[in-house]
Amino acid sequence: MCGIFGIVGNPEASNLTYLGLHALQHRGQESAGIVASDGQDLRAHREMGLVADIFNAPVLEKLPGNAAIGHVRYSTAGVSQLKNAQPLTVEYVGGQLAVAHNGNLVNAQELRTQLEADGAIFQSDSDTEVVIHLIARSKQPSFEQKVVEALSKVKGAYSILFLTDKKLVAVRDPNGFRPLVLGMVKNSWVLASETTALDLIEAEYLRELEAGEMVVIDETGLHASQPFPPTRLGRCIFEHVYFAKPDSVLFGTSVYETRKEMGRQLAKEQPAPGADLVIAVPDSGVAAAIGYAQASGIPYDVGLIRSHYVGRTFIEPQQSIRHFGVKLKLSAVRQVLKGKRVVVVDDSIVRGTTSRKIVKMLKAAGALEVHLRISSPPTQWPCYYGIDTPSRQELIASSHSVEEIARYVTADTLGYISMEGLGSAVGDKERTTFCTACFSGKYLTGNLNPGATSVSESNPKLATA
Amino acid sequence: MCGIFGIVGNPEASNLTYLGLHALQHRGQESAGIVASDGQDLRAHREMGLVADIFNAPVLEKLPGNAAIGHVRYSTAGVSQLKNAQPLTVEYVGGQLAVAHNGNLVNAQELRTQLEADGAIFQSDSDTEVVIHLIARSKQPSFEQKVVEALSKVKGAYSILFLTDKKLVAVRDPNGFRPLVLGMVKNSWVLASETTALDLIEAEYLRELEAGEMVVIDETGLHASQPFPPTRLGRCIFEHVYFAKPDSVLFGTSVYETRKEMGRQLAKEQPAPGADLVIAVPDSGVAAAIGYAQASGIPYDVGLIRSHYVGRTFIEPQQSIRHFGVKLKLSAVRQVLKGKRVVVVDDSIVRGTTSRKIVKMLKAAGALEVHLRISSPPTQWPCYYGIDTPSRQELIASSHSVEEIARYVTADTLGYISMEGLGSAVGDKERTTFCTACFSGKYLTGNLNPGATSVSESNPKLATA
Amino acid sequence: MCGIFGIVGNPEASNLTYLGLHALQHRGQESAGIVASDGQDLRAHREMGLVADIFNAPVLEKLPGNAAIGHVRYSTAGVSQLKNAQPLTVEYVGGQLAVAHNGNLVNAQELRTQLEADGAIFQSDSDTEVVIHLIARSKQPSFEQKVVEALSKVKGAYSILFLTDKKLVAVRDPNGFRPLVLGMVKNSWVLASETTALDLIEAEYLRELEAGEMVVIDETGLHASQPFPPTRLGRCIFEHVYFAKPDSVLFGTSVYETRKEMGRQLAKEQPAPGADLVIAVPDSGVAAAIGYAQASGIPYDVGLIRSHYVGRTFIEPQQSIRHFGVKLKLSAVRQVLKGKRVVVVDDSIVRGTTSRKIVKMLKAAGALEVHLRISSPPTQWPCYYGIDTPSRQELIASSHSVEEIARYVTADTLGYISMEGLGSAVGDKERTTFCTACFSGKYLTGNLNPGATSVSESNPKLATA
Amino acid sequence: MCGIFGIVGNPEASNLTYLGLHALQHRGQESAGIVASDGQDLRAHREMGLVADIFNAPVLEKLPGNAAIGHVRYSTAGVSQLKNAQPLTVEYVGGQLAVAHNGNLVNAQELRTQLEADGAIFQSDSDTEVVIHLIARSKQPSFEQKVVEALSKVKGAYSILFLTDKKLVAVRDPNGFRPLVLGMVKNSWVLASETTALDLIEAEYLRELEAGEMVVIDETGLHASQPFPPTRLGRCIFEHVYFAKPDSVLFGTSVYETRKEMGRQLAKEQPAPGADLVIAVPDSGVAAAIGYAQASGIPYDVGLIRSHYVGRTFIEPQQSIRHFGVKLKLSAVRQVLKGKRVVVVDDSIVRGTTSRKIVKMLKAAGALEVHLRISSPPTQWPCYYGIDTPSRQELIASSHSVEEIARYVTADTLGYISMEGLGSAVGDKERTTFCTACFSGKYLTGNLNPGATSVSESNPKLATA
Repeated sequence: MCGIFGIVGNPEASNLTYLGLHALQHRGQESAGIVASDGQDLRAHREMGLVADIFNAPVLEKLPGNAAIGHVRYSTAGVSQLKNAQPLTVEYVGGQLAVAHNGNLVNAQELRTQLEADGAIFQSDSDTEVVIHLIARSKQPSFEQKVVEALSKVKGAYSILFLTDKKLVAVRDPNGFRPLVLGMVKNSWVLASETTALDLIEAEYLRELEAGEMVVIDETGLHASQPFPPTRLGRCIFEHVYFAKPDSVLFGTSVYETRKEMGRQLAKEQPAPGADLVIAVPDSGVAAAIGYAQASGIPYDVGLIRSHYVGRTFIEPQQSIRHFGVKLKLSAVRQVLKGKRVVVVDDSIVRGTTSRKIVKMLKAAGALEVHLRISSPPTQWPCYYGIDTPSRQELIASSHSVEEIARYVTADTLGYISMEGLGSAVGDKERTTFCTACFSGKYLTGNLNPGATSVSESNPKLATA
Repeated sequence: MCGIFGIVGNPEASNLTYLGLHALQHRGQESAGIVASDGQDLRAHREMGLVADIFNAPVLEKLPGNAAIGHVRYSTAGVSQLKNAQPLTVEYVGGQLAVAHNGNLVNAQELRTQLEADGAIFQSDSDTEVVIHLIARSKQPSFEQKVVEALSKVKGAYSILFLTDKKLVAVRDPNGFRPLVLGMVKNSWVLASETTALDLIEAEYLRELEAGEMVVIDETGLHASQPFPPTRLGRCIFEHVYFAKPDSVLFGTSVYETRKEMGRQLAKEQPAPGADLVIAVPDSGVAAAIGYAQASGIPYDVGLIRSHYVGRTFIEPQQSIRHFGVKLKLSAVRQVLKGKRVVVVDDSIVRGTTSRKIVKMLKAAGALEVHLRISSPPTQWPCYYGIDTPSRQELIASSHSVEEIARYVTADTLGYISMEGLGSAVGDKERTTFCTACFSGKYLTGNLNPGATSVSESNPKLATA
Repeated sequence: MCGIFGIVGNPEASNLTYLGLHALQHRGQESAGIVASDGQDLRAHREMGLVADIFNAPVLEKLPGNAAIGHVRYSTAGVSQLKNAQPLTVEYVGGQLAVAHNGNLVNAQELRTQLEADGAIFQSDSDTEVVIHLIARSKQPSFEQKVVEALSKVKGAYSILFLTDKKLVAVRDPNGFRPLVLGMVKNSWVLASETTALDLIEAEYLRELEAGEMVVIDETGLHASQPFPPTRLGRCIFEHVYFAKPDSVLFGTSVYETRKEMGRQLAKEQPAPGADLVIAVPDSGVAAAIGYAQASGIPYDVGLIRSHYVGRTFIEPQQSIRHFGVKLKLSAVRQVLKGKRVVVVDDSIVRGTTSRKIVKMLKAAGALEVHLRISSPPTQWPCYYGIDTPSRQELIASSHSVEEIARYVTADTLGYISMEGLGSAVGDKERTTFCTACFSGKYLTGNLNPGATSVSESNPKLATA
Repeated sequence: MCGIFGIVGNPEASNLTYLGLHALQHRGQESAGIVASDGQDLRAHREMGLVADIFNAPVLEKLPGNAAIGHVRYSTAGVSQLKNAQPLTVEYVGGQLAVAHNGNLVNAQELRTQLEADGAIFQSDSDTEVVIHLIARSKQPSFEQKVVEALSKVKGAYSILFLTDKKLVAVRDPNGFRPLVLGMVKNSWVLASETTALDLIEAEYLRELEAGEMVVIDETGLHASQPFPPTRLGRCIFEHVYFAKPDSVLFGTSVYETRKEMGRQLAKEQPAPGADLVIAVPDSGVAAAIGYAQASGIPYDVGLIRSHYVGRTFIEPQQSIRHFGVKLKLSAVRQVLKGKRVVVVDDSIVRGTTSRKIVKMLKAAGALEVHLRISSPPTQWPCYYGIDTPSRQELIASSHSVEEIARYVTADTLGYISMEGLGSAVGDKERTTFCTACFSGKYLTGNLNPGATSVSESNPKLATA
């Protein structure tokens, strides 16, 4: 997953971008980068790591100019390399160009093969580089037209920012998979993945970009257009379930309030009569747990504490520790849990291994019963639009019933919210404006990675470590 | 503040110490260190920074042996240097010695002056080094007797671990200011500042060390004694209010449940009739806010989100951002707060500047009214026993009434818990077992830093930036 | 300037490449890189800095395979960036490709403009990237044919190595500007800029590649061909004067012996009757100084000591130190110089500022007279074939007579070797096989950078600091 | 070995110290440190590594004040740790104190045992710390008197600088083992191990400190005294043979000229009739080789080139390379050596392994005969006064005749200079002012490490790898 930010017309463009990226850090912790334009040259700084560690005053001083774009990135291990860090920067016939992309293209490999056959050379593994090649090869007269021609060839999810020496161009794909909002601070235009970035820099939130909309900002001001024909909306429902920061306004509704509503729906659909308290798996389950408590009348409490200091390279002792990975991150509050029948609310179950550790940890801390409630339907299908999910085989719900999953995670009961309930919580009961492919398998675009939807029939063995 | 950890009789001593320090990281983020003994040599590794960044497999491999002690440290800026990082290690007539100390000695300067007059040389600014000199100069025959003689000369707070090539000695001061608990894992004895460290490594919690108790662990087993005469207990009440991790059991009671009880008391003493919701200043205010909500019947909700990625060196734009410092750490959830009368629960007010920023931020996010409730009495006196507090002049409550503070922090109402209420919440209504000097000025030991209790009569100007 | 190394058919390919680069470190200290092929994948490691600091056992373990190429680079300040470090690696229609290039193309900008117009995008400033684009766009059926087609379009200097998953291709430009030698160690083929790299790894020196020759090494063995038509040879004479390591055999003759012969010629052409001793500016002037001493009969001695510990960022005190920059690198041996008439031999004079500092330093150390002798003719023209020289205006000899230069550098006398003398020393009295453009302005290729040969008529002011 | 530098009365004290340490870098490459005094506080910076890597403008800005001392250190592997880096800094009854020491004390362990018995605690392994304890325990009224009392108890070699907030005290031991010179720059007093440091900062060389002299520099000026009774001088002859920088003036004579004279003596004593050329093992053998060539009439030439880029962690390929360690540092110039009878001059033979590799390398490069000539007598005894030598057993000359050594190193002939010849070269034919213990075993002080002079009778096996 990724977060993007852009600003035009501000003498502190790179500093504000850096703050914006800090606010969007939850969207990607692997690498971060900023490219700034002083009207003549683009200057870039990209590194692996966290925004607060990568940027400081001396680094930002080397990124002068009134316009800047930034990017934070998370990706699966295999391609975690500096060369894939964004914004990408290149030189082509039109001059210098920087690109920051949130989302994932589903026909990138196909386009890349065509481009390579035609002599293109690639520096990164990133699908974003395909878009740059398409722009560089476009014979359209203006930069904007080149961008439109290039994007008309790609399929999939993109909220994307282009920065040249003279202008910033922002485009959101016709399905509107990933968010992108427009704001203004001190007469400067701001673009960001989420409103929380606007809030941090005290920018006013103006509106979300429309699906398929292109916005061009240059010295003459902002110019919006709709170069792509309207199509079915496909806002990512998982942004509301898990990804976005709770204080953001996403697709027009408050993330926090939406999650709380999911909890209320969940309480109605999957009650836990006789339970003593409702706790959350922090932090993503907190809002839904509070909603569940409110709707059910079961008291909300804190049964798991999240550490602020989770590192990456802890060495497990040979004298193995039970639930080691989860324990470094979460501590159980024994006195809250002891002898209690506990409803624990989480946002989703992926492989099931973490849920299993959490349930076991709660019981080890004294919980009499653990009733696991999930504020999204069973995750059965991988996402090809930008969220990092494992392959279908690894998704426990793709091959196991709710009962089987409950048994595996050792919960006394397990209840998922229904598709209808989730739709209702996000204000789209019919789910005609959201992409729910990860639950339903109904992908909105054609081209998917080869074998993407092929499902192993076998019932994979579950990890019981 | 500091955290300490020790283990004896385990082939993975340094690895378990490292995990223990990770669990105690909230007690000090400035430096960390581990010293391990293989029965012949002590080996040390100390660095500025976080446990997860300092230690890794190659570093831990260089710390072999069955016994180890560790330390995490926080201190005020002036003396934030590697030379003050602990455990301290020295060579003296008895051989090699390492020391890890939590607490603060109030007659360290006086003893240091005497020792220097007698030819001692000092490497660090730390009060702990005084103890080592006293041990080195003791003519007592055994190491334990040297330790007792040395500690009988110091006054103040110490939960302290000594490691030699052959044994680990743990002592808690006669007032029992700072916590220290004993546990066991796989036949290894464990000592730690808090039970959360035992939980992480799956050690069984046996008991707290008594005030004035000394425990010696060597190859013949554990030997407990009470070398110091009993005196009035002075457990730090601020550990319960703010410092300890909520999942720990401290001075015999659950930190989390105790904080929730503070919230309940606070609700009784300082109600907020007509309020729409109760929110916490995360994370330290969460338990009390939940208690307040339960006792008052006002719904609990999340109005402030804490960032997981707070760095240290953010550069504020010249185009200044309101409440910048707080905003990097906390985001307001606008949709929760908008048009609401909000009770916000925090653990304490120190200078008042942060509270002021938080109240303003809540109002900027739409809160109609902000009723600030504090789960401890006004902090009027500096701590000389190990908690980093500013000088008396900087403590807003030392020179301002509650009404004045309310006006300064721009809260509609402000209410503190009473001394009685807090005492009752920690299970000591008469406050005969706790140190409450930060609220009352009643220090339990004589020697305090020169001028420690002198109070400026002037009403210092408050920062309104 | 740069150095390149390649090896095929050796299980320790990357380790031997790293040793080879160490031996070639004098050809470039700014960045270094190695790309290894295991027959399927290319893996790369490139960093700014010195070979010994960049590579170590863990890094080399990540570069497995039987084939590898490496590169060390020096370049002018402006483009000293990691993105320009080589070997460059890309993916194109033929798969993965890595390239290491020594030399400089004179029509790179022109080709780049054409390629960009045709949709190419560029990642680096390097002229080498142009070659890769030309290969990627070639419609020739085989990789070798693509390489030949691509190189037939470029003009200038290139000794260049290409590594794919299956083969290594080495080409030397038709003029043979830069050296490239072939060797063999334990049945592995080795290519290197200089023979000193072969010596270090105990490879046998087989021969220099011919100008215009292409060598392809794959699992079937080595295949040599001559794809480019013969043209006038243009071996870089400055490699013999200054650049190459003295123990190398270059263009068929010993660098050390050739330099000594330059010294002997210089003694004949520019005697210094009455001088007491001959000293060198170390290290590059040592061989010529010894030759000068032998031919003149004036004793050779050491008057300047070179420091082994020259760093980059020394801060000059405000209380300014005379000849600061030179003094950090060279110390005068006062007792050798005192009261003596000294001949000092250097390889060349570029701007004159360093020579001026050296002469002044020798006089400050007590030299009665300083007779500066230069083992190359006046450097009047910039090099466009890979040696970093300043612009023509900055070359003192482009606008000043020998007498003027002598006065500027404060030498009592100044003498340069003649073109004939230098030619004779390198064994090419007629200079028909060497490029001498830096002395003569006779460039062997057409396309030079715009304005490359335009010379300012004005007499630039000399720095007298 | 170590180098020390001090300056008083200069606003750029720490910057000049840093330059002075750079000039003394050849005396120690393991760690470096500077302590500066602003008249009130001492501030220190010490790190492992090279001067140029450790210090830069921001670091030096944190070391303000008019007085500073610095230290560069080399030591044997076991105790290469930051805690042993100097200058050491402590606080004691007299306030802050920093110490920089060149030399080695022979009764340090004995004193340390006494001090520990008396309650002292030690932070480092360094013998220097003993001196600090003795000062801290002295009951003398003034700092100078404390220093004299402390030093009167130690035996061995010390050129030592003490810095307090108010003054700098420099002392040289009564034997005068290690050098220490006094200079002046812009009204600031300077102290340095060698004159090369004075030259770099343009300080005027005034004189060497006398053996047993103490110099105190404070705001009232420089005060010299002779607190220690005169004794036999014991200037380290190995400083002249190998250690000092050739451009320094040491013990009154030029290092370079003295080494050249050693070469002349060596030529007279150990001629090599019929040899074609004389080469040096660079850099330490160069001056003696030139002297040998002058006296013998055999031409001097360069047969070995020293690399400027020697790193520490080169990995030898499994396909082992002959003379690997030496080859990374030295390259043979094949065309100079081929078919020649070569005299090679080196300063000493320690274990014999390096000499063996060099001789073999010269023969592998084509030398017909190799005649090894050594400009010092056989090294038979370890140094206890500050030069890092292996134990007696490892010194090949302690148990092997010259003929045996020649055979081991595979030289056709081997000749050492005589004791008389060396004495004559250093201007002390009777050797009454120099310490020659490494050649003669005649140590000038009593207390040596236990077993220091015990010699194994067995003929240890030589490494022939």
